[in-house]
Amino acid sequence: MHFDTPLKLKGGAVMPAYELMVETYGQLNAARSNAVLVCHALNASHHVAGRYGDDEKSRGWWDNMVGPGRPVDTRQFFVIGVNNLGSCFGSTGPMSIDPATGKPWGSRFPVVTVEDWVDAQARVLDRLGIERLAAAMGGSLGGMQALSWALRHPQRVAHCVASATAPSLSAQNIAFNEVARRAIITDPDFHGGDYYAHGVVPRQGLSVARMIGHITYLSDDAMARKFGRSLRGGALNYGFDVDFQIESYLRYQGEKFSGYFDANTYLLLTRALDYFDPAGEHDGNLAQALAPARARFLLTSFTTDWRFSPERSREIVRALLANQRQVSYAEIESPHGHDAFLMDEPHYHDVVRAYFARIAEQLGLGDPA
Amino acid sequence: MHFDTPLKLKGGAVMPAYELMVETYGQLNAARSNAVLVCHALNASHHVAGRYGDDEKSRGWWDNMVGPGRPVDTRQFFVIGVNNLGSCFGSTGPMSIDPATGKPWGSRFPVVTVEDWVDAQARVLDRLGIERLAAAMGGSLGGMQALSWALRHPQRVAHCVASATAPSLSAQNIAFNEVARRAIITDPDFHGGDYYAHGVVPRQGLSVARMIGHITYLSDDAMARKFGRSLRGGALNYGFDVDFQIESYLRYQGEKFSGYFDANTYLLLTRALDYFDPAGEHDGNLAQALAPARARFLLTSFTTDWRFSPERSREIVRALLANQRQVSYAEIESPHGHDAFLMDEPHYHDVVRAYFARIAEQLGLGDPA
Repeated sequence: MHFDTPLKLKGGAVMPAYELMVETYGQLNAARSNAVLVCHALNASHHVAGRYGDDEKSRGWWDNMVGPGRPVDTRQFFVIGVNNLGSCFGSTGPMSIDPATGKPWGSRFPVVTVEDWVDAQARVLDRLGIERLAAAMGGSLGGMQALSWALRHPQRVAHCVASATAPSLSAQNIAFNEVARRAIITDPDFHGGDYYAHGVVPRQGLSVARMIGHITYLSDDAMARKFGRSLRGGALNYGFDVDFQIESYLRYQGEKFSGYFDANTYLLLTRALDYFDPAGEHDGNLAQALAPARARFLLTSFTTDWRFSPERSREIVRALLANQRQVSYAEIESPHGHDAFLMDEPHYHDVVRAYFARIAEQLGLGDPA
Repeated sequence: MHFDTPLKLKGGAVMPAYELMVETYGQLNAARSNAVLVCHALNASHHVAGRYGDDEKSRGWWDNMVGPGRPVDTRQFFVIGVNNLGSCFGSTGPMSIDPATGKPWGSRFPVVTVEDWVDAQARVLDRLGIERLAAAMGGSLGGMQALSWALRHPQRVAHCVASATAPSLSAQNIAFNEVARRAIITDPDFHGGDYYAHGVVPRQGLSVARMIGHITYLSDDAMARKFGRSLRGGALNYGFDVDFQIESYLRYQGEKFSGYFDANTYLLLTRALDYFDPAGEHDGNLAQALAPARARFLLTSFTTDWRFSPERSREIVRALLANQRQVSYAEIESPHGHDAFLMDEPHYHDVVRAYFARIAEQLGLGDPA
């Protein structure tokens, strides 16, 4: 979708015109009441569910959650995926050509925030003729967007479904993001963010950044179970090449990621995470910050998630209860750390499935299929 | 101290000749029974206590623990600090000249292990005429050396005092080390480890490595208390320069460290950490691995240390008890994470002080001063 109306960003900059990649699943009903917006986290996109042609590798990032017969059943709901502004999967971002200069935006692409994304997503809904969402939904950074929807557009969202999220990053969260950014920015191939003109990408820095991220997505326990101290070759090499399976895994993840993800986008998305802090504008009072919300909420967290721990979800729950909001909260036993929100955790999926069944009932969407 | 007898390393290489920087405190008694070996962790050295001249900045790294009137009272004990082989504070390491080539060892410096260090330290004791240590002592990687002392030279160590340590690194620990090493090795100024010849150092990579380390030394809670989401300038800058205090702190730590520490040493020391695993040679049976120990033990851990958590110390305690060893164990309430072992934690210091008072009593060292 192309947008010509300038979008004023929270940081003061204005996006004069921009494109957003949008993918939808299922059918919008006649009442236009069954729309679910799925917001993506760091490295995902508008491609939430399904696959392109027969390519199994092209499965959407939340395909186990969204689709026919899935917890968010696309036989009942009309699901919308939007690639956010600044991302690198087709929407306008640092790799795009800035019409003002005829060159890639690069370092001149403005810092975008969760709130900016929500405002841009609202225009997508306008375009689709959707006044009110049945639900805004997401995990991690996507959960922050769902939460922000309930605050910025309280009349436009009936339910907010947020998994493995937090009302703001902790100092430790910001610290990990900062180290990842330093790895990228100090890579000589970064060229101050304008590497496109040099025909290179800061691949090593982006790879290190991704390795750091991966450590924080997995639980200590999950890593111990999956890798432990297993050696790749059966014996130590007394050198700095790969000895342990965990090293091999991380290097592979880093290299794979740096082959398809844009480094400037990584900077932007981590900054959006850092900056999200609705309570910050209310002297740290989260209950006050959440007062505008009118939606009903489903929050889920995962016991071994040390990145966005259950305690961070409970902060949101308490603040919503202080506002007499309706909140369902499930703390899911899972060994999979932060990554659990993307995984096929039966209890988690049961909870989400039951919640959406109730929404369908409230809306009179009828039985699926 | 210069050593001419070649040292065979665990990895198979041989150090033909080498120097070790040694610093001692207090007096060796006539019975030669009051010696305490203090083993250092990643970025420390032989300079354990005291200061050089009037320079307050030259305080030893464990000056709050070792000295006159300190928990390890140098009016009673003769304390020995040794800079380990491969380190960069005067002992033979990658920056030293390899006599075989006339050039710095650089990438050809062999991988050293905790066991190699212990064997080299044993030669220091031989030189000093010390047959048996009153105690081998250390925290973190230093605690691993203390533990290894009890296994490799059971008759030469009466007490083993290990703080904030582990019987081996977890997959997550190794993962953090690996990311730090990748940051160094992929820095173009690393030149395969032979950067000395190019007149550069891989400063950016080492800085990122140190930043990662710092995050793991502090607890989430300590970071929240010390920095929280405080902004350095009072307002967000909507860019990638320093916004948050935690970013400023980490950058400063990274830059400071990369100005004085050798990158090859960082690789070696993290690898020594990765490789330490006495149970590994006994099918993972730690009790079997610790069977040779004859020392008495004091282990301490810290509640918010997520790098070497209390559970890792408890593993050692259980394995020692399975061998009917005498073990004292204190789990100290502290908000300071892994760093707590270096800090002036009153309960921790009380425990260590009482333990050394008992050693002094056993040895008939008399009252201090």
